[in-house]
Order: sequence, then structure tokens, then C-alpha cells
Amino acid sequence: MAARKLGRGVSLVGAGMSQFGAFHDKSSRDLFTDAYLEMLGSIDKPMNPGDIESLYIGNFSSDLFEGQAHTAPLYTETVGLVPRAATRIENACASAGVALRQGIIAIASGLYDVVLVGGAERMNALPTSKVTEALANAGDRLFEISAGFTFPGFYAALASAYMHKYGMTPEALMHVAMKNHDNGALNSKAQFNVSIRGWMEKRKASAEKKGRPIPTWETEMDFFHDDAANPFIAWPLRLFDCSPITDGAACVLLVAEERAHEFTDTPINIVGTGQASGYPLHGRTDMTTLASARLASQEAYDMAGVTPNDIRIAEVHDCFTIAEVVATEDLGFFAPGEGFKAAMEGKTARNGSKPINTSGGLKAKGHPVGASGVAQTVEVFKQMRGEAGERQVEGDVPLALTHNVGATGNTSVVHVYERK
Amino acid sequence: MAARKLGRGVSLVGAGMSQFGAFHDKSSRDLFTDAYLEMLGSIDKPMNPGDIESLYIGNFSSDLFEGQAHTAPLYTETVGLVPRAATRIENACASAGVALRQGIIAIASGLYDVVLVGGAERMNALPTSKVTEALANAGDRLFEISAGFTFPGFYAALASAYMHKYGMTPEALMHVAMKNHDNGALNSKAQFNVSIRGWMEKRKASAEKKGRPIPTWETEMDFFHDDAANPFIAWPLRLFDCSPITDGAACVLLVAEERAHEFTDTPINIVGTGQASGYPLHGRTDMTTLASARLASQEAYDMAGVTPNDIRIAEVHDCFTIAEVVATEDLGFFAPGEGFKAAMEGKTARNGSKPINTSGGLKAKGHPVGASGVAQTVEVFKQMRGEAGERQVEGDVPLALTHNVGATGNTSVVHVYERK
Repeated sequence: MAARKLGRGVSLVGAGMSQFGAFHDKSSRDLFTDAYLEMLGSIDKPMNPGDIESLYIGNFSSDLFEGQAHTAPLYTETVGLVPRAATRIENACASAGVALRQGIIAIASGLYDVVLVGGAERMNALPTSKVTEALANAGDRLFEISAGFTFPGFYAALASAYMHKYGMTPEALMHVAMKNHDNGALNSKAQFNVSIRGWMEKRKASAEKKGRPIPTWETEMDFFHDDAANPFIAWPLRLFDCSPITDGAACVLLVAEERAHEFTDTPINIVGTGQASGYPLHGRTDMTTLASARLASQEAYDMAGVTPNDIRIAEVHDCFTIAEVVATEDLGFFAPGEGFKAAMEGKTARNGSKPINTSGGLKAKGHPVGASGVAQTVEVFKQMRGEAGERQVEGDVPLALTHNVGATGNTSVVHVYERK
Repeated sequence: MAARKLGRGVSLVGAGMSQFGAFHDKSSRDLFTDAYLEMLGSIDKPMNPGDIESLYIGNFSSDLFEGQAHTAPLYTETVGLVPRAATRIENACASAGVALRQGIIAIASGLYDVVLVGGAERMNALPTSKVTEALANAGDRLFEISAGFTFPGFYAALASAYMHKYGMTPEALMHVAMKNHDNGALNSKAQFNVSIRGWMEKRKASAEKKGRPIPTWETEMDFFHDDAANPFIAWPLRLFDCSPITDGAACVLLVAEERAHEFTDTPINIVGTGQASGYPLHGRTDMTTLASARLASQEAYDMAGVTPNDIRIAEVHDCFTIAEVVATEDLGFFAPGEGFKAAMEGKTARNGSKPINTSGGLKAKGHPVGASGVAQTVEVFKQMRGEAGERQVEGDVPLALTHNVGATGNTSVVHVYERK
């Protein structure tokens, strides 16, 4: 099939995010406002916010988290943009990535020139067990959730299948966690703005202060193997293999490519977009890959006219450490069964050959599920413009990618970005 | 401002819906499948369902009704369309209308030629009080729902304001209910496939059979004023002013205009689309109009290059009888304060000058909230092609309109259809 093409080009000219964390005094509309204001501040040239013509909002389940559906017009009111058309997208943890795609499509259609895309989720209003139940709604209620599955279980099944097929041990996954926390330590917006090493030191200091036995960990691996500090959640996944429960929001501004110069002299063009659906986990023949991620990335690569090797950095959907390993294979960065080795060899580190999740990823930056897809775009925007501060990768970033997954790949959405 | 334009034309070539009603043995994916199969059967020329390239699904809250989020890929799996990109839209009761708009935009963008748009809701899995609570999530949780508002209350406030401003009495609203039930009586898919007169006869026969006192109603107005048969829900709205709680689904197939001939010789073109957001009810200065509906319809009229007078029939969002009266004014069919008179004079009846809700509307056909916007399109498709059977309006229907509202107009979305 010929590559799908959009009717006209789309540029990214602004990006912002709220602090990620657990905030008991902020609703999702407050978080959205924080992200919106930072996004506005990121736009290089003066603009009138009233020029924004439409909003696409990713939100997984304020319905359950806040007793609030129909969030798109409410956020629109909060930031003063009524009566702009406001559309909420819900595709589980891929909600914001799919919202980004709809924003791109809307500009390509000719209907709008200036579109705001955002995402928000306020998850910590509920206790952890209720959050786990709410997230489970993204699986298949009839055939999976009713059998007792929750998301740690889903991804533990992937990890088990992967270990069996490729001989990976859980230590490889610990390398993913360590790397993402190293990056998160350099991201002041991250929920876990601390490395694993830093975390260990904190725990030791706290124990000493409280007169408790001081842990004897010497290396990060000692910490990871400590069943008390890093308990099993669903074998082989331990606590530090799981992304946290996060409150947060993110926003980006898209404009028609021919108008990008009105907003900035350094626009980032979105040159590829791909989206695919996948069978629920119970209906698959192979649990070591997400077929939808392979298809979505192929669509995005074909549209952009690039290959995986051309991509300098990528933000991938590491809701669990195993998800990052599988993602780096599904995206064609590494061959099947090679992703875990690449992680262990440091290839995906910030100074490696293929930096993955320089933001800290969902793992350390945090995972406000309906916002994560756009938060990935925020990181790519900063890295491509050389504005990522301490965690800036070396050299130019001419091409980057984001990979956002809903459930276990029931939805995948991939975008390719180019700095002109 | 110049009228917004789409990059290319979009045609409607197929439409179907499930039976509407209360089905305790069907999940929303079953209902969606029913609608999908009827839609496929409505396509005049042979087609391969695999040619469908993407799906846009309206769904308000399977999250709460069925413990199931992320419904778009699940419905896609159910009808055998994995790995097509599947996107869920949630804009309260306007979810399906907004999904329709996204489908149109996606074709206009050049990305897809063949797009399925559907909506589904299975509401009767919960008891009525829980349904009312779930629907309330579409209002503003912080400033409205927390103060005790539910949707009958919202629309009762509109009705009170309207009565105060224009001197309407509740009898006018009863004319709306009577007219929509007359239409629903001719629609075998309707939840209430019976006229008010028929309903009265049934009640009388039932009372006689059970040896109870036979009601003495002679006219429909006698019935409407019977506090036992038609109790107040929220003054001035009575039971028969409210749409029911409905399980149902609807589906339509959109294609690029230049390819419509591959599917049918009588396509319906969608020549206008408009969407706007509105303030929550508590933030408005006028409760006798929905500003977002006025803006959305103006956008749709401008794009289509037509005026309200050109529209032959319309399906409007009559979640409550007062909503239909206000809609017919917001759409420019009647002047402010004249909508209720038009209803009383029969102008909106099937044989009137401006037939409204020939399907029976949300009131009699039923209101599966996330499906209603597309179910409106199904009716327009049938009427414009002369396939509406007993309820077919007289003469040609060259132009028609659908009007779908989320909450109290926090979202409005309007489409204009033309038969070439």
C-alpha cells in the first residue's frame, strides 16, 4: 500500500507540562491550566491565545477518578477558550497520543490552522486499589478483567513470555528502571526526580535518622533484589518495574506548517503519524510484541519517509520496564530479542547510540495516563530545540519519535518529528 | 470570518442502528455489532468490510455503565476490523455527533477514504438512580453536581427561564412529546414504538384486565395532567417530558466524495459541520438558548452555504421536550420565543412545514447517550433516500440537519446533509 499522506503539513510551536506527582489540592482542570500556561510561555513570538481554534484533550477516566466526564469543554472554560470546539479522546493510556493525532488530522483537513492538544489525569484522588480497578477498565472486562487480570498482571505475562522466548533475566529490566531514574533525576518536573542511587542514599539516611537498621545495599542491583525495598508486584515484575500513579497534565500547540513562522523561528514539524488497534491480550498468538505498535510505527515511518535508524531519540511507553524493551523492538530500533541486551549495554542511555526516554519516561517522570502521550511530545520538543537543560542529549536531534500505548497495545500511536 | 472549509468532500453511503430499548442480555459491543451489520446491509453495492480504514466511536460512559473503558478497539475487534485505527470520542450526549465530525475531518485530511463512525451505550445495566448519577458526571462536578443538580434539574431550569421570559405554559411541551411519540409509533426501532394515544389505550386495557379502576382520560392532555400517570420529575418537567434510559447503538459509513459511486448511486453528502463549546449552565447569562448550538449551526450553515429556511427536516437533541423547543430557535427555524408556538401549531409535525424528529427523537426513539448523534444521522439518511417507510415525509428532502448536544450545551455539534 502507498504511504498515507496528510493534506498539509503540521508544525509544533509550543509545549508545556505541569509538575508531575501526587497533588491532593489540585483537580485535573488545575493541572491542565498549569500545563497550558507553561505551553503559552514556550511560544517564542507574541500570540493571542484567542487565535487557538480548537482543542483536543486526552483523558482516560476523570469519570472514575473525579466523578467528571465531558472534560474537554470544562478545561476549555478553565483556560478561557469557550466557545472553541473541544473534543475529548479516550483510548486508555494512549488517549493523549491519539488526541495529538486528531489535532494533526484537523489541521491537515483544512478546517483549522491553530489547534491546542492536551491531556490531563488526576489519579491520586482515589486509593491505590481503586486506581488499579479503574485502570483495569482499559482491559477487556468480559474476558480478562473478570478472570482477575489487572495491568501489572498483563505486563507480567508479557515479561514471562519474553523471558521464556529470549532468555532474558529480570536484571535486564532493572537496567531499564535505573536508566530512566537517572534521566528523571535531571527532570525537575518528574514525579521521581531522583536516581536509584539517590533513592538508596535517602532511604539509608532516613533509617539512620529513625534509629532503624541501615540497609546494606552497595549497588543498585542489591537494592533491586531487596524483597522489602522492591517487592514483587506480579512476578517477575517488582515495584521498581512499574510506573507510578501520577497527577499531571501536558499541552502542545500545533499550527499549519505555512503559519509556523508566526509563532517561532524553530518549529518542529510532525512528519509522520500512525495508529493501529490490536486484539486484547487474551486473543494473541505472540505476547512478546505488540502488533499494533509495529503497524503504527510502520505507518508513521512510511509517511515521514524515514527508517528506525534515522531516529535520534525516542520517548516510548514504559508503563512497565518490559514495555520499554518490547517497544524498542517493535519500533525497529533493535531486533526481536535484542532489546533487553541493548538496555543492559547502555545503548538506550542518554549518552548511548539510541537514547530512550530522556525525560525519565513514564517510569520516573510519572504516568498520568491520559496525559502521557502529550508529555512525551513535550520532551521531544525540548530536546529537538536544545532546551532540555541538564538532560539535553549531545549533538543535533533532527528526527525524534514518540510511542504511546493504550492497555496492552489494544491501541498504539506513533509520531515522527523533524527539526527543519 | 470566512466560512471554514474542508479539504475535500465527504459522502454518507450506509447507515444502520440496533433496536433501541432495555436489553439485559446485550453488552454495548453486542449492540454495536447489531448496528454495524445493519449498516453493512444498507450499502447498495458490494463492498469488502476490510476496506474500512478507521473507526470513530462515540461512547459516553461504558466506564460507569459496564466497567469498560477503551471501547473503540474492543468494538473494532468484535466486528473483525483489527488492526484498523479506532478512536473513542467522549463529549457526553454529543459523543457520537462529535465522532461523526472527526470521521468527516479524517477523510477531509486525506488520510482515509473509508471511515466507519458509530456510537453505543448500554445504560440499563445500572439501576435508574445510578444512571442519573452517571449522567450527572457530564455536568460540572465542582460547581453544579456538588450543589445537587442532575440533568432533569438542569433542563427544568431552562424550562422555567423560558416560561418566565416567553409566557409558555407546560402544555406546549406536551405537544412536543405527543408529536415525537406519534413519530416513534412509526419507527420499529424505537424504544417507545407507540403514540401517547396508543399508550393510553394500553394502560386502560391493562387496568381493565387487572380489575383496577379504568382511567378516565379522554384526550392526551388529560393523560399528561394526570399526576399519577405522568408525575413531575423536576417542575415544570413531568415524566413524559424526559427521554428514556436506553440501550442502543448506531453506525454510518463515510467515504471520500469522489469514491461514493463505488458504494451507492444515491449518496448523501455532508456539506456542513460545526462544533462549539459552551459555559456550564451556572456561568451563563441567558438560560433560554444554548450559545454553542447557535455557533455550531452558524458554522455548519456557512460551510454548506445554506440558511435555516433551506433545511427540509431536522433531527434535534430533545433529551427533554424543552430542549427541542430551544433547539428549533437556536437553529434559526423559528425566532426566539416562537419555538413553542410552532410546536403547538403543528409546524414541526411530520406533515408540517418543518418536520422535526421524524424518527421519534430521543424522546420516543430512545437516548443511548453515546449513540444518539449517529442515530440522528441514520434517520436523515433514510429520509433523504426515501427509505423511511411509514414515517417518510412527503416530497423530496434535498437538505437536512442533525443537532446533537452534550450536557446543557457545554458541547453542541451540527451537521448539514445534501442529497445530490
